[in-house]
Amino acid sequence: MIYLRASIEGGFWKRCQELIREKTIPYQWMALNDEIPGAPRSHSLENFRIAAGRSSGQYDGMVFQDSDLFKWLEAAGHLLRDEAPGNAVIRRWAEQAIDLIAAAQQPDGYLNTYFIVKDPAHRWKNLREGHELYCAGHLIEAGVAVARSTGNGKILEVTRRFADHIDARFGTTAGKTRGYCGHEEVELALVKLYRLTMEKRYLSLARYFIDERGRAPSYFEEEAKAADFAPLFGIHDLDYYQARVPVRQLAEASGHAVRAMYLSTAMADIALETRDTELAAACDRLWESAAQRRMYVTGGIGASARNEAFGADFDLPNDTAYAETCAAIGLFIFGSRMANLRNDSRYADVMERALFNGIISGLALDGQSYFYVNPLRVRPEACDKNPSRQFVKYRRQPWYGCACCPPNIARILASLGEYVYHLGDGTLYADLFHDGSVSCEMGGRRVSFRQRTDYPWSGEVSFEFAAEDPVELDLAVRIPSWCRGASMKLNGSRFDVARAMEKGYAHIPRQWRRGDTVELTLPMPVQRVRADPRTEADFGKVAVQRGPVVYCLEQADNGPFLHAAVLPAGSRLSSSRRDDLLGGVVTVQGRGRRWDGAARSSGLYQPDGRPPAAAAGDLLFIPYYAWANREPGEMTVWVRE
Amino acid sequence: MIYLRASIEGGFWKRCQELIREKTIPYQWMALNDEIPGAPRSHSLENFRIAAGRSSGQYDGMVFQDSDLFKWLEAAGHLLRDEAPGNAVIRRWAEQAIDLIAAAQQPDGYLNTYFIVKDPAHRWKNLREGHELYCAGHLIEAGVAVARSTGNGKILEVTRRFADHIDARFGTTAGKTRGYCGHEEVELALVKLYRLTMEKRYLSLARYFIDERGRAPSYFEEEAKAADFAPLFGIHDLDYYQARVPVRQLAEASGHAVRAMYLSTAMADIALETRDTELAAACDRLWESAAQRRMYVTGGIGASARNEAFGADFDLPNDTAYAETCAAIGLFIFGSRMANLRNDSRYADVMERALFNGIISGLALDGQSYFYVNPLRVRPEACDKNPSRQFVKYRRQPWYGCACCPPNIARILASLGEYVYHLGDGTLYADLFHDGSVSCEMGGRRVSFRQRTDYPWSGEVSFEFAAEDPVELDLAVRIPSWCRGASMKLNGSRFDVARAMEKGYAHIPRQWRRGDTVELTLPMPVQRVRADPRTEADFGKVAVQRGPVVYCLEQADNGPFLHAAVLPAGSRLSSSRRDDLLGGVVTVQGRGRRWDGAARSSGLYQPDGRPPAAAAGDLLFIPYYAWANREPGEMTVWVRE
Repeated sequence: MIYLRASIEGGFWKRCQELIREKTIPYQWMALNDEIPGAPRSHSLENFRIAAGRSSGQYDGMVFQDSDLFKWLEAAGHLLRDEAPGNAVIRRWAEQAIDLIAAAQQPDGYLNTYFIVKDPAHRWKNLREGHELYCAGHLIEAGVAVARSTGNGKILEVTRRFADHIDARFGTTAGKTRGYCGHEEVELALVKLYRLTMEKRYLSLARYFIDERGRAPSYFEEEAKAADFAPLFGIHDLDYYQARVPVRQLAEASGHAVRAMYLSTAMADIALETRDTELAAACDRLWESAAQRRMYVTGGIGASARNEAFGADFDLPNDTAYAETCAAIGLFIFGSRMANLRNDSRYADVMERALFNGIISGLALDGQSYFYVNPLRVRPEACDKNPSRQFVKYRRQPWYGCACCPPNIARILASLGEYVYHLGDGTLYADLFHDGSVSCEMGGRRVSFRQRTDYPWSGEVSFEFAAEDPVELDLAVRIPSWCRGASMKLNGSRFDVARAMEKGYAHIPRQWRRGDTVELTLPMPVQRVRADPRTEADFGKVAVQRGPVVYCLEQADNGPFLHAAVLPAGSRLSSSRRDDLLGGVVTVQGRGRRWDGAARSSGLYQPDGRPPAAAAGDLLFIPYYAWANREPGEMTVWVRE
Repeated sequence: MIYLRASIEGGFWKRCQELIREKTIPYQWMALNDEIPGAPRSHSLENFRIAAGRSSGQYDGMVFQDSDLFKWLEAAGHLLRDEAPGNAVIRRWAEQAIDLIAAAQQPDGYLNTYFIVKDPAHRWKNLREGHELYCAGHLIEAGVAVARSTGNGKILEVTRRFADHIDARFGTTAGKTRGYCGHEEVELALVKLYRLTMEKRYLSLARYFIDERGRAPSYFEEEAKAADFAPLFGIHDLDYYQARVPVRQLAEASGHAVRAMYLSTAMADIALETRDTELAAACDRLWESAAQRRMYVTGGIGASARNEAFGADFDLPNDTAYAETCAAIGLFIFGSRMANLRNDSRYADVMERALFNGIISGLALDGQSYFYVNPLRVRPEACDKNPSRQFVKYRRQPWYGCACCPPNIARILASLGEYVYHLGDGTLYADLFHDGSVSCEMGGRRVSFRQRTDYPWSGEVSFEFAAEDPVELDLAVRIPSWCRGASMKLNGSRFDVARAMEKGYAHIPRQWRRGDTVELTLPMPVQRVRADPRTEADFGKVAVQRGPVVYCLEQADNGPFLHAAVLPAGSRLSSSRRDDLLGGVVTVQGRGRRWDGAARSSGLYQPDGRPPAAAAGDLLFIPYYAWANREPGEMTVWVRE
C-alpha cells in the first residue's frame, strides 16, 4: 500500500479539523493532565512522570491508560503536518509528551507505565489483559505520525527501540514467547512502521501475531493456568478476543468490536502487502459480516453493551445500541484497507457512512465533550431509571474513566487526509469527497489534484489536475451507492458515467494536463432508507438520509413521544440550509403525524382498545451527528412509516 | 387479616398442584441433594449437613442457599395439607429436612449455614448482603406452612427460637442493632408468624424493620464503612435495596423487583394489621407504579436484567425483559395483601394476570425445568450470539446457580388455596376462580362454598353453599376487568350483576342456605389488548388474550421472522379446545400476514426501498405460559397490527 495523504483545505472537514486543533487537542491535553474540573481523572501524564522518576505517587487509571496519551500524540502529529497558528502550542505540548515518554522508556526498550510503576513482576505475563502490546501499537502509530509530519526522530527512535524489544521477545523461534495481545492493535501499527521504515522485520512480526492468534493450545488459556495474579477484567471467553480459532478460519465479525476491527485491519494490511489470498478471503468474510449484517445505519457496530461486542446478524436494537465511537472508527480503517485490497467502492461507501454519522456523533459541536456510546433512540427518563440502560448517555460527557474514544476521534479526524484517496495499479481512487489537494508520484511523474466541494451539504464536486506536466493516469471517482443519476463533465463536456463505471468508481483514464477539470454532480434528494427486513428493530420504519448524512428527530424540534411519530409513505420531504443551526447544517422537514401524549388509555393494558389518535404535524430532522447539542430530550433515527 | 385457605379439588389448578406434587417436589429434592446430572450443583442440603456436623467439607453456593431448602420445605408443607398418595415420601423428606435444619441450629437459636460454616466472624455484620434475615424469613414461612398443615411442632419450635434470637438482637432499644436486611422477606414472614401464633412481638419486630428501613444515617453505609470484609456482590446503590428514604416516602416501585415486592407485601400486611393509613397510602403508590406503569402484559415486572430491577414508567422492552419468575410471584403476593387492605378487584385482576402468565411460564409442562427470566419476544440466534442477551434463555433450564425461582414457584402454586378468597367485614371475596372448596367461620357460624369451573378455558363458574346451617353473609364475586357482559343466576334466576357491582365485585348479600347456587357466566371471546401508547415496545402492536390467559406466537406453529407477522385490525380470531396440545390448552387462530424471509433487499440499508411483501397466512397462538415446551424457536407476545 502506497502512503498517500491529501491536505484538507476547506469545507466541512477543514472546519472539523480546525475544531480539533483549536478546541479538542488543547482540552484533551488538559484532561490528560487532570486539569478539567468535574471530569474523571486521567492520570495519564502523571503515570509517565512517575515512570520517568519525575514524580512520586501511585499509578492510576486503566491498565491501558498510556494509550490515551499516545492517541493524543498521534492526533497532534497529524495536525502538525499543516501550517496553522494553533500549531505552536501543540508542538510544545507534543515535545513535552515525547520527552516524558522517552524518559519513561526502560534501558531495554520496554515502555508501559502500568507495568513499570505498578506491577513490574508481571511484565508480559498477562498478555490477555495487560494491553502492553496494544499500548505499544498506539505508541508506534503516534511515532509514525509524528515522524511523517515533523521528522522528529526522537519519538521514532523510542518507537523503534520498543518495537525491537517486542520483536526480540515474541515469535516462533526458540526462546521467544509465542504469545499475542488480548487487544489487537500492535499488528496494524507494525505494518505502519514497516511502511515508513521499509524494515521487513516489522511486517514479519505483524504477520507472526496474526498467524499465531487462536492456535491450539490457546496461549491465553495456558497463560491463565500459570497465572500467579488475579485477572484484571475476568473475561475468559476466547471469542471476545478473536482467539478461539486461527484468524484465517474466522467466519464472522464477533467478540469485542474494536478488537475485531483492529485485527481485521491488520489482516487486510498483511493480505495486501504479502498477496495472501487466503487471508484476503477471511477479510472478505469479516467485512460482509460486519458491514452487511451487523452494522447500524449510522455505521455504528458492536450492538452489545456487554463485552462491547457484536451481536447476531440483524440484531441491531436502537435504544440499547452500544455502537462505540472507537468501533465505528475501527470499521472505517478496516474499510480503508479493504478499499486498497479490492479497489471496490463498497468499502468507501461504508467508510463514508461511518464517518459522517457514527464517528463524528462521538464529538460534540463544542469539540470538548463526547459520546462513547452512540444510540439511535433515546428516552432520557428510561436511561436515568433503568439500570440496564445507564450506559446510554443523552448528555455529552466531559471525559471517561475509560477514555479510549475522545483521543481516538481526535486522531482519526486529524488524519483524514490519509483516507480520502488511494492508489492502485496506475489508478488514483477518489474515495471520500472533501475540499483539498493531493500530490503524489506515479511512474516517476508528479500527480496533483485539487478537489473542491461543499460536500456533504452539496453533491457538486470538482477535480482539477494541478501538476505542471501531463501524466497518463486513471482517475477513479467513487459514485456513492446512495446516489441515483450521477453525472459528470470533463473539461466542460458531458462524460458518460454509466459507461465508465467499474466496481462503483467512474474511471477516467487519460493523459491529464494542468487545468483539466472534472465536474461531478451527485443528485442529493432526501431519501427514505429501509433496513433489511430481517432487522427487527427497524421493521416498519424508515430512516431519513440525504447524501451520506443520516438524520434524526430530536425532542427539541418535535416534542416527546417520538416512538409514536409517523412519516407516511407518500409525504414529501424537503431540505433547507440552516447556517444558524448546530454549526451550520442542512435540515430535512416533512409532513407527518405526531402524538402529543393525550388520549391515553385508562389502564396499562386495555382489551379491544383503539390506537392513539396521532395528529398531523411537521417533523424536523437534523443530522444524527449533531444530536445532543441542545437541551436533553428524546431522539430517534428510525421513524414509523 | 384472617387466614383462609381453600382446597383445590379439580380443574386447571388441581392438575398443576398434582404436577408439583408428583414431579416438581421430588425433582427439587434431588436437585437440593445434588442428584440431578448436568444441573448446577445446589449443595443446599450438604451445607446443612456440614453445619450440623454430620458431614465435612466446605460451604458451597450462594450466600442465601439455605432459602432454597426453606422454600422447598414450605411447598412440601402446603402439599401435605391435602391427602394424596404422593404425600408419604414428601412427608419423609420433609422430616429429614426438618431434622437437619434443627440439628444445624445453634444453641442461641441462630441458623444460617453460610455464617455457621464459612464465615462465623461476620454473623450479622453484613446485613446488606448477607441475606441472614432473608433466609430467616423463608425459614419462618416454611415453619408456619408445615405447622399449619401437619401440626409438626419441631420446625415451628426451630422457627420461633430463631425469630426470638432475631427479636433479641434487632430493634431500637439500647443494646440492640438498628439494622435491617438487604433483601426484604423477614418482615412479611414475621407477620405470618404473628398470625399463626398471635404473638404480638413478631408483628412489632416486622414493623420495626419496616420503619427503620431507609432512615438517616444509612445503616448500610455505616456498616460498609466499618466493614473488615470484601463485599459479596458490591451493589452500593441504596435504591436497589429500597433503603434511600424511609419506606413511607417511597413514590415508585424501583430497585430490585423481588425486594421491592416483598417489602411492599409486608408494608400492606402491617398497614392492615395496625390500621396504618400512612403506610397504606405508600402501598397504594407502590402498587400503582408497579402494576399500572411498570408491568408487562404477562404480569412480569422488573424490566432490567442489570440489578434485576424496575425500569422507568412504560419502559418495557420485550426481547430483553427480565421479568423474573420470583418478581411476578412478589407482585402476586403484594396484590393479595392489597386485596385484603382495599377490597377492590383491581388487585386480584393483576394477581390473575401474573398467575396465569408470568408466574406459571416459569415452570415447564414437565414440572422439572424452569425459566428464571420470562421474555415476551425471543429470537434464539440473538440470545446465542449477543452477550447482552445471554440472560434470556429459550430452552428450559434444569436448575440454576442462583436457584431462587424453582422452589418459589413450587411453594406459591402449592399454597394457591390461600389466595383464592379473602374475608373482610362479613364479606367473603371470591378473588381467583378455581375448582375447590372453602370453609371458614363467620360470626360463629360455619361457612362453606364449593366452587366449580373449568377456568381459565371456560368462563362458567358456579358457587354452591355447602354448610349445614343458614348464614347471613355477603359473597362478593370478582368480575374480571377483562370481561364484558358478565351475567349471573342465583338459584336459577337472573341476578342483576350491574346493580350488584362495587369495586369490581358483584356482591350477593343474603342468608345463604345449603344448596344455594350462583352460576356466573363470563363471556370469553378472544381479545386484542393494546398497551398504553407511552409503551414504546408495544406501540402499533396487539397482544392476544382470552379470559386471563395471554397468548403468544411460536415458531413451531408460525415459522420464523415473527417480528414481521401482522394481525390486521379487522381479522377474525377464533379459539379451539386442543386437549392433545401442550397438556391441554385452548388455542387461538386467525388470518394474518406472514413474511417468509424471501424478497430481501440487496443491501443492509436501501434508499427508497419497499417494505417486504408479507403473504396472507394463518396465525396460531398458544398460551404464553406454555411456550418453550417444544423445539426451540422464536416467540412473540406482541404482534404488529
